[in-house]
Amino acid sequence: MNRLAAALILSLALTAAAQERSLTGKWTATVDFFGLPIYWQLDLTQDRDQLIADFAGARGEGTFAGGKLHFQGKDAEGGSKEVTAKIVDGKIAGEVIWKQDGKSGSKPVAYKFSAARNPEAANSAPKTHEFEPTVFRKQFSALYEPVLTVNPGDTIHTWTVDSGGVDAKGVQRSLGGNPQVGPFYVTGVVPGDTLVVHILRLKLNRDYAESTDGIVPRASNRDLSISTRDTGNRIRWHLDLEKGLATPEQPSSHMKNYAVPLQPMLGCVAVATRPANAPPGTNDDGYYGGNMDFNEIREGATLYLPAQVPGAFLYFGDAHAAQGDGETTGDALETSMDVTLSVDVIHGLHPPEPRIEDATHIMAMGEAGSLDGAFAEANANMAQWLTDDYKLTPAEVGMVFGTAAEYRISEVADRNAGVVLKISKQRLKGLSH
Amino acid sequence: MNRLAAALILSLALTAAAQERSLTGKWTATVDFFGLPIYWQLDLTQDRDQLIADFAGARGEGTFAGGKLHFQGKDAEGGSKEVTAKIVDGKIAGEVIWKQDGKSGSKPVAYKFSAARNPEAANSAPKTHEFEPTVFRKQFSALYEPVLTVNPGDTIHTWTVDSGGVDAKGVQRSLGGNPQVGPFYVTGVVPGDTLVVHILRLKLNRDYAESTDGIVPRASNRDLSISTRDTGNRIRWHLDLEKGLATPEQPSSHMKNYAVPLQPMLGCVAVATRPANAPPGTNDDGYYGGNMDFNEIREGATLYLPAQVPGAFLYFGDAHAAQGDGETTGDALETSMDVTLSVDVIHGLHPPEPRIEDATHIMAMGEAGSLDGAFAEANANMAQWLTDDYKLTPAEVGMVFGTAAEYRISEVADRNAGVVLKISKQRLKGLSH
Amino acid sequence: MNRLAAALILSLALTAAAQERSLTGKWTATVDFFGLPIYWQLDLTQDRDQLIADFAGARGEGTFAGGKLHFQGKDAEGGSKEVTAKIVDGKIAGEVIWKQDGKSGSKPVAYKFSAARNPEAANSAPKTHEFEPTVFRKQFSALYEPVLTVNPGDTIHTWTVDSGGVDAKGVQRSLGGNPQVGPFYVTGVVPGDTLVVHILRLKLNRDYAESTDGIVPRASNRDLSISTRDTGNRIRWHLDLEKGLATPEQPSSHMKNYAVPLQPMLGCVAVATRPANAPPGTNDDGYYGGNMDFNEIREGATLYLPAQVPGAFLYFGDAHAAQGDGETTGDALETSMDVTLSVDVIHGLHPPEPRIEDATHIMAMGEAGSLDGAFAEANANMAQWLTDDYKLTPAEVGMVFGTAAEYRISEVADRNAGVVLKISKQRLKGLSH
Amino acid sequence: MNRLAAALILSLALTAAAQERSLTGKWTATVDFFGLPIYWQLDLTQDRDQLIADFAGARGEGTFAGGKLHFQGKDAEGGSKEVTAKIVDGKIAGEVIWKQDGKSGSKPVAYKFSAARNPEAANSAPKTHEFEPTVFRKQFSALYEPVLTVNPGDTIHTWTVDSGGVDAKGVQRSLGGNPQVGPFYVTGVVPGDTLVVHILRLKLNRDYAESTDGIVPRASNRDLSISTRDTGNRIRWHLDLEKGLATPEQPSSHMKNYAVPLQPMLGCVAVATRPANAPPGTNDDGYYGGNMDFNEIREGATLYLPAQVPGAFLYFGDAHAAQGDGETTGDALETSMDVTLSVDVIHGLHPPEPRIEDATHIMAMGEAGSLDGAFAEANANMAQWLTDDYKLTPAEVGMVFGTAAEYRISEVADRNAGVVLKISKQRLKGLSH
Repeated sequence: MNRLAAALILSLALTAAAQERSLTGKWTATVDFFGLPIYWQLDLTQDRDQLIADFAGARGEGTFAGGKLHFQGKDAEGGSKEVTAKIVDGKIAGEVIWKQDGKSGSKPVAYKFSAARNPEAANSAPKTHEFEPTVFRKQFSALYEPVLTVNPGDTIHTWTVDSGGVDAKGVQRSLGGNPQVGPFYVTGVVPGDTLVVHILRLKLNRDYAESTDGIVPRASNRDLSISTRDTGNRIRWHLDLEKGLATPEQPSSHMKNYAVPLQPMLGCVAVATRPANAPPGTNDDGYYGGNMDFNEIREGATLYLPAQVPGAFLYFGDAHAAQGDGETTGDALETSMDVTLSVDVIHGLHPPEPRIEDATHIMAMGEAGSLDGAFAEANANMAQWLTDDYKLTPAEVGMVFGTAAEYRISEVADRNAGVVLKISKQRLKGLSH
Repeated sequence: MNRLAAALILSLALTAAAQERSLTGKWTATVDFFGLPIYWQLDLTQDRDQLIADFAGARGEGTFAGGKLHFQGKDAEGGSKEVTAKIVDGKIAGEVIWKQDGKSGSKPVAYKFSAARNPEAANSAPKTHEFEPTVFRKQFSALYEPVLTVNPGDTIHTWTVDSGGVDAKGVQRSLGGNPQVGPFYVTGVVPGDTLVVHILRLKLNRDYAESTDGIVPRASNRDLSISTRDTGNRIRWHLDLEKGLATPEQPSSHMKNYAVPLQPMLGCVAVATRPANAPPGTNDDGYYGGNMDFNEIREGATLYLPAQVPGAFLYFGDAHAAQGDGETTGDALETSMDVTLSVDVIHGLHPPEPRIEDATHIMAMGEAGSLDGAFAEANANMAQWLTDDYKLTPAEVGMVFGTAAEYRISEVADRNAGVVLKISKQRLKGLSH
Repeated sequence: MNRLAAALILSLALTAAAQERSLTGKWTATVDFFGLPIYWQLDLTQDRDQLIADFAGARGEGTFAGGKLHFQGKDAEGGSKEVTAKIVDGKIAGEVIWKQDGKSGSKPVAYKFSAARNPEAANSAPKTHEFEPTVFRKQFSALYEPVLTVNPGDTIHTWTVDSGGVDAKGVQRSLGGNPQVGPFYVTGVVPGDTLVVHILRLKLNRDYAESTDGIVPRASNRDLSISTRDTGNRIRWHLDLEKGLATPEQPSSHMKNYAVPLQPMLGCVAVATRPANAPPGTNDDGYYGGNMDFNEIREGATLYLPAQVPGAFLYFGDAHAAQGDGETTGDALETSMDVTLSVDVIHGLHPPEPRIEDATHIMAMGEAGSLDGAFAEANANMAQWLTDDYKLTPAEVGMVFGTAAEYRISEVADRNAGVVLKISKQRLKGLSH
Repeated sequence: MNRLAAALILSLALTAAAQERSLTGKWTATVDFFGLPIYWQLDLTQDRDQLIADFAGARGEGTFAGGKLHFQGKDAEGGSKEVTAKIVDGKIAGEVIWKQDGKSGSKPVAYKFSAARNPEAANSAPKTHEFEPTVFRKQFSALYEPVLTVNPGDTIHTWTVDSGGVDAKGVQRSLGGNPQVGPFYVTGVVPGDTLVVHILRLKLNRDYAESTDGIVPRASNRDLSISTRDTGNRIRWHLDLEKGLATPEQPSSHMKNYAVPLQPMLGCVAVATRPANAPPGTNDDGYYGGNMDFNEIREGATLYLPAQVPGAFLYFGDAHAAQGDGETTGDALETSMDVTLSVDVIHGLHPPEPRIEDATHIMAMGEAGSLDGAFAEANANMAQWLTDDYKLTPAEVGMVFGTAAEYRISEVADRNAGVVLKISKQRLKGLSH
């Protein structure tokens, strides 16, 4: 087939596609900002050759003719976006000239972009993926290649190395520092959605864990800093998987009969952050989840994390055989684990910080550079949740907090401290919405 | 019997007492510092007319002759105390010339003092006191007249007004601000001892409580401050004592079926502080207990408070029908209550901050001007407890924290925030000491 | 003159006074709440026998006849105040029946009160008072007897003992802990006014000061806590009043040539707090001023403190020969001092926290249980100041902060930390109001 | 020349090199940990074919023969490192088998590494580099290619874009968020050294700057959050470079005469962090410097930053025309700038946090998630400085702090807050060391 014939067929195919499918709908645009991708939502309404567009807040009109789009929109700050693009393989590809606002001294700049239509709900049957990891990541980055693509509803069965990078057989598989499995690309998730993660099964897969015997600075006042100045030694714990107990392998005199019930948990579950800024390391946590080290992120818990990028890019790791509140030693009973979890998506909900749910409670996490800050963030997260889902007024939120708040200190070992506000589902049953 | 004969007999009796009873033992001296009492421990060893003395750290020797004591001691800082005193009615009364230390520029000063022998354990049978309060106090002060003197082992049955000063019949009995019942003088308690308070029964005695619907500043981030800016209204709750439920009397639309289980608690339990400094108000808390607002200070709980003055001067009040963690509205379901508690003493133990115990846990409280500060104080308090009672090393304390810590945020509504570290008695069983 | 004649003349005089002077005006009522005084503002408008009254927010009407007042008012919360009183010696004396609000479960209660007319500006010539103190106070209390009554405009010349209670001659005059001179009653000041204190002269009056060599816990991280664990010893400094230098009396090897310029300052300046709550101790600070330990409260500085009680009850003390920012050792170069200051009043201004002014800056203090809290309070105090005096909008306040803020950490040694926001008067000159 | 001859000559040359130069000395090894470089210091002592080695704490002995090294060392934790390597082009290249410690459950792992000899001081004449940037970076990463290599003593003259990525001509050159010039590789710097940066000249190069009018959450209490809820608008400032003044371009009514003196400063100066963990973004700060936003980092200031990687990788940017303390609006007067600075190195000094020096003061920065944390870090940094350079004991440090501390709040706008402790050089003159 000569090039002319090929072009003709392609042209006809594109025309046919344009005829059978309107541009009307929501798109996610990936804009190239000096080498870094920025994700903008594009909302189009097409009426034959007329277009109405909302491109990340810039609203205006334009035309669609011959597979080519052109529109210009203005935003509330007096800025403008002018788009010249065309349809290529069902995507929109082109250029946007962005003028930031009316006051700014900076000149308009042209950026390349392409936009894909936001996916419909997958109607394939849920699937279970057996995943064997070979590489472990130390950043919650959207720039790593996804290790697997899954659909909402799918289940992932895999395993994690411990926080030091060691697997079930004692083999070092990665540099330490909470190396993660992932990222998993979840189809149909766009920025502004919530990634839902159900933790179905956390199964210990080796007979030891490691920890230390110190108390982190944040947990110590002056006297405790002084009295513990010679601690911080490594402690190995034997994990008796049958009895469900952890015991120190070489117990000191007072600890000979000391045993801790095994309560497997995941220290890290995260979505990737937007690539415009430096990605968080896997020892950090925040609105994206991450190294939350909350001992109720265990079997039966469901997490809600705000997706920042298309596909969400799910990461997890840093399994603990057991952990006291706060992870005061700076680490928990660190071990490897078999993990089974399933994913889902809620479109259009975007919690300000991670949310967790189990059989008895809803739980809002707050994370900040101090416990005082984390506490206030947890309250704001829960207040928003009660407003989103239960339609409570601010005064009603106050009444629920005053009578039903249960606080936990999730973590003090890392850069952020974490506080969790739990509300019993028993209390929530009394709310009419 | 004429007066002369009586005097003679008394004189003989005193002489006999002086002869039969050595000065050897521990005494509590009350020293008059420009009108304010200071309590110093005095430790005497008498060998006929020779004395060895330790007077608040100043150690030295002296004499006891003709009912008169004289000794001089030096302390580690280079200061000295010279005592000239006599025995009057079984007490030591006299003067101490105190030179503060070797470096200080201040001159020695003479202070009057009297000292009473530290009491032995009471061997009378425990007694229950029915106490009808008539006055309510707003300072945890050692300068108020005790309302009742009780022995270790005794039980007190009384009632409290609510935080606004209103009693079970709705009658205003005091200015609001957590007015307290007390002070109760507990015989045999000296500074350095621990006052033990067992909360035996907390019985609601009226059918309403009052609260508000706001969220305190400490619990709010910027967004929550703005969204709740018009809250803070008073809410009346109906207390259904039969069903054990509290419900808003005039519920807003979403709260029509909202009900809170009644969990009566005491917002305040305290010992008095040393009179040398200003006493705390009843809305404050600290090492003396006070307005801790911790919802596990309820029936079945035992408190351990460090006595600061002879008799400890127990106060309590500010009963709550129910309260979420943190008292985030700034008040709980404030109500009046019938209270039954018993007291006891542990000689020579002096916890740095309040400790609490119930059927399942030991709990160490920390209180400070921030949650971060309170958290560190709670840890130091528990570390000291595990060292005192379980003889753990600092590293063992670290291991117990790392595997068994459970944190609660007790209160954020007052000047101090409170954090409680709980350790399950199940875990403690494994400790050999 | 016999008693009958005298009574008759007095009666006539009072009648005449009553006739010639209307009740119209502002009064300060002292209400007896179960033994504690509460101050309420009473605003009366009299038109012959008709009265319009605003009694602490309760507004209503009533009558004045035969020297007797009766009125009833309602407040915004649905509460009411009913007053029955009469004129006695130019004061109003009687009873108020107060019903707190529409929702509260508490019953109305009758309280005795008396009210005095708010004073006019004194038109006597300013006077200098030589005051020789004999007693020193350790609480910023309104219940101590004033040591002297002064008028706005008057100057006080007196002296202070050091923080340990020792005077210029090395004589212990009080128990330590920042004993204060005062309280001074300033005529014409009522709650809601601002007491103005001009520090005219701070003159050192002895040749030594005392300090320590530690670093307070709040200033130490874990490492610094450990490295300084054996510090905290007392250091005596020689004050060379001629050269204006302080040097350690027994310098360690590296400090032989170390000298600090003398910069005398007052650690404490305060008004009394309302007696309804426990008064602050003299080691505490807050909205009332107190132990602020800010090294710019020195000669030439003016303080603005919000009066809480009639007469304001001014206290001061805790002089320092020199002090680094923050008072990190827990004390400064503590010494005695000759103090000259004058007082004034601004009616109707009530800063939320202390304000200070000198030749070059206005300074807003914030005090809280953490530096983070104190910092936010300082900003709110200054924002209010710029709004009060310069009529700035919130956005204009933001612009001034962003370009002219200068922060100091005043103190970290006591329960509250202090932060001061300074704005240069040079910048303020550009503001048009 | 055929390959055999070439190989022979190379072999002879290497042998000659090996003969003339011993391995004795300090080397920096780059170890490949699963794709991430780790830098270990290697200290070798060669005596003919015998080697003594300290490889990152593992000490032991071995052999050097035929261009091949082999040694094995043990560390204090019971771990071991076994090295098999050879000399290639003057570098050591080979493999290290690392066993982490005696207790750990993980197995030994082999890692590839190469080591270069730590450089001698450059003896070339200092040079000034005119550098024209073309790419701007948003991470303080050691994995970006250096844009220029300079020697200690050299001067760099270049320019920066503003925090939004806009240059002197108003052209957008990068995505916003403090894009940086750099990294500059400084020869002779190894991990453990200090990079010294002298800021020689900061020259404004355009006539406008941009800012906003809000107050950041960390600077606001509840009331200030509510009152400023509608602020946060962009403000353009005119920069009058002649008069040295900034004025709002469209001033509101009260600001018509408001002018701010220009005080150019660099918001960011940083070294790269170790690549084993995620690099910080350019809106973050810490021990590596970064976005410190301290308004005394201006002409005449010298910075001391702890090098983390060979070459240090210097970055800078985010210039401000003027800034109040704390950067309370969330940004300063953001603008572009011509920058001249020179670099130097101090071998073997490694400050825990950034240090700064100017004509009058030494300044120790502390950065943490709260002002309280930052304050303690600043104190620890300065205490270490006084110990390092002035040999003070902990008690002497306490005395200097207590009499000479001057604190500044550098920044509250980003994730970390910053506090700076300044000590006057006038005070330091009195210290004998």
